[in-house]
Amino acid sequence: MSVKPESTPQQPAVTVLGLGPMGRALAGAFLAAGVRTTVWNRTPGREGDLVERGAAVAASAAEAVAASPVTVVCLVNYDATDAVLRQDAVEAALKGRALVNLSADTPGRARDTGGWAGEHGIAYVDGAIMTPADTIGSAGGVFLYSGPAAVYEEHRAVLDALGGSHTHLGEEVSRAAAYDIALLDIFWTSMAGYVHALALADAEGVSPRELAPFAAGIARILPPLFEEFAGDVEDGTYSGAINPLTSGVSTMGHVVHAAEAHAIDSGVMRAIEGLAVRTVALGHGADGFSRVAEVLRRR
Amino acid sequence: MSVKPESTPQQPAVTVLGLGPMGRALAGAFLAAGVRTTVWNRTPGREGDLVERGAAVAASAAEAVAASPVTVVCLVNYDATDAVLRQDAVEAALKGRALVNLSADTPGRARDTGGWAGEHGIAYVDGAIMTPADTIGSAGGVFLYSGPAAVYEEHRAVLDALGGSHTHLGEEVSRAAAYDIALLDIFWTSMAGYVHALALADAEGVSPRELAPFAAGIARILPPLFEEFAGDVEDGTYSGAINPLTSGVSTMGHVVHAAEAHAIDSGVMRAIEGLAVRTVALGHGADGFSRVAEVLRRR
Repeated sequence: MSVKPESTPQQPAVTVLGLGPMGRALAGAFLAAGVRTTVWNRTPGREGDLVERGAAVAASAAEAVAASPVTVVCLVNYDATDAVLRQDAVEAALKGRALVNLSADTPGRARDTGGWAGEHGIAYVDGAIMTPADTIGSAGGVFLYSGPAAVYEEHRAVLDALGGSHTHLGEEVSRAAAYDIALLDIFWTSMAGYVHALALADAEGVSPRELAPFAAGIARILPPLFEEFAGDVEDGTYSGAINPLTSGVSTMGHVVHAAEAHAIDSGVMRAIEGLAVRTVALGHGADGFSRVAEVLRRR
Repeated sequence: MSVKPESTPQQPAVTVLGLGPMGRALAGAFLAAGVRTTVWNRTPGREGDLVERGAAVAASAAEAVAASPVTVVCLVNYDATDAVLRQDAVEAALKGRALVNLSADTPGRARDTGGWAGEHGIAYVDGAIMTPADTIGSAGGVFLYSGPAAVYEEHRAVLDALGGSHTHLGEEVSRAAAYDIALLDIFWTSMAGYVHALALADAEGVSPRELAPFAAGIARILPPLFEEFAGDVEDGTYSGAINPLTSGVSTMGHVVHAAEAHAIDSGVMRAIEGLAVRTVALGHGADGFSRVAEVLRRR
């Protein structure tokens, strides 16, 4: 019979600040991977079964941070992380340690936090989690990081314990947030198109489950089009040979008229049609819809 | 040495009205499949190489229609098809023949055209082409039809000569247009999200080609989510356990703020955020985003 030590000096260790659904999933995945895990949450009692699974609960954020060489923070946004981190005791405890911020916010807030970390001698990596809490600890998780590569590499083994794919996007601390925001833009806009289509189809007697397989077919044609549009915008081509903006405007109008005939709010499609019409009015009617990306960037 | 007759009584025959890029592609695919093809366009001289490939050019729409048991019309919209078809000579020529309308317009216009066809003894099938002109005649074309199944079945062999997938969606003449409009809604909204994301990423120093593979990753998670949302809306569940509307509203706000910090028009995302906020205000903050489909349908 052998006695297993609770920890060894070589055992990796991490602190998790924030125990919402995502924070709990992160802590659980660290524990499952054998990482010594200390947790803290502003409101106590959110540990769930993490304690029986081996987590240490710290009495304060400063105590939590002091327990590990790297702290992962996951709160609702950077107002919340600022409220927790920008206190003298926490800043003192973080000095010389690493902080990985997986909370979601804008690139501007990531830059601001990077500046704050630099002023306090904190090794800072910004990050974004692109997949829901139930993917954490599985192959399905997608994590993006940016900030000093040396800091990321030093703590990469601990982060890899979360499973899934991990990509370091560059030294500039705001890059993970920039990708995150751009991808959320695509995600929510696509989902908004889908729920509007479900409402419109329903009004026309087509049920959600009847529409869904065809909708999935539309989603499947997007990846090659996304690649083609990226080339159009990066190279300044905007080819409309196959699908000119003028014909797009015509079908957008059909969507608005069909939906509004059933009193379905079409503000989203009206805004899209407005961008397309504006782009045509600027003389780009024969270009493809990719031209709208360039028009959006004009000052 | 044998002489091949130009046509036989058994050779299938079709008339194509409208020789824009799509009409020319349709006529070309019919010719390539050995279908005797008569073409007509309001503005003469748009036949391209169709004549040397074997097409007969009719002097009028009525003459064109009289040359074949089935006519396929493909114009910019139903204002254009009405202008061509709703003339005494054309209506007389169509009587007892079949008309397949592959022009794009709203379900309401499809119903109206179905009524007109019934009054004039025309066997009418409405249809929609979901893919660009360059897919016609290949495996990539996607064609939807609705209207009398008997008419569709009688002319199916000719339509199948266009290649790709052909789906008859039901007897109700407006169904093809309803699917078409709903799928265009998803398509244009998704593409609008993508061009906005390209503009936002560019403003943050992330190039289109850097973003594209991650954007494609978002597109690839959509098909299972579309299926899940269809179940949510059809069954009235709207589960927000993994991603409640309140947290969606927060990330939509991040997109708006990040884009507007670079003076990028965010009217589309503001409209989406408005729908989500309205749905939360109606007491559905703990539901998933699928609840928005139900709110859009409320009168």
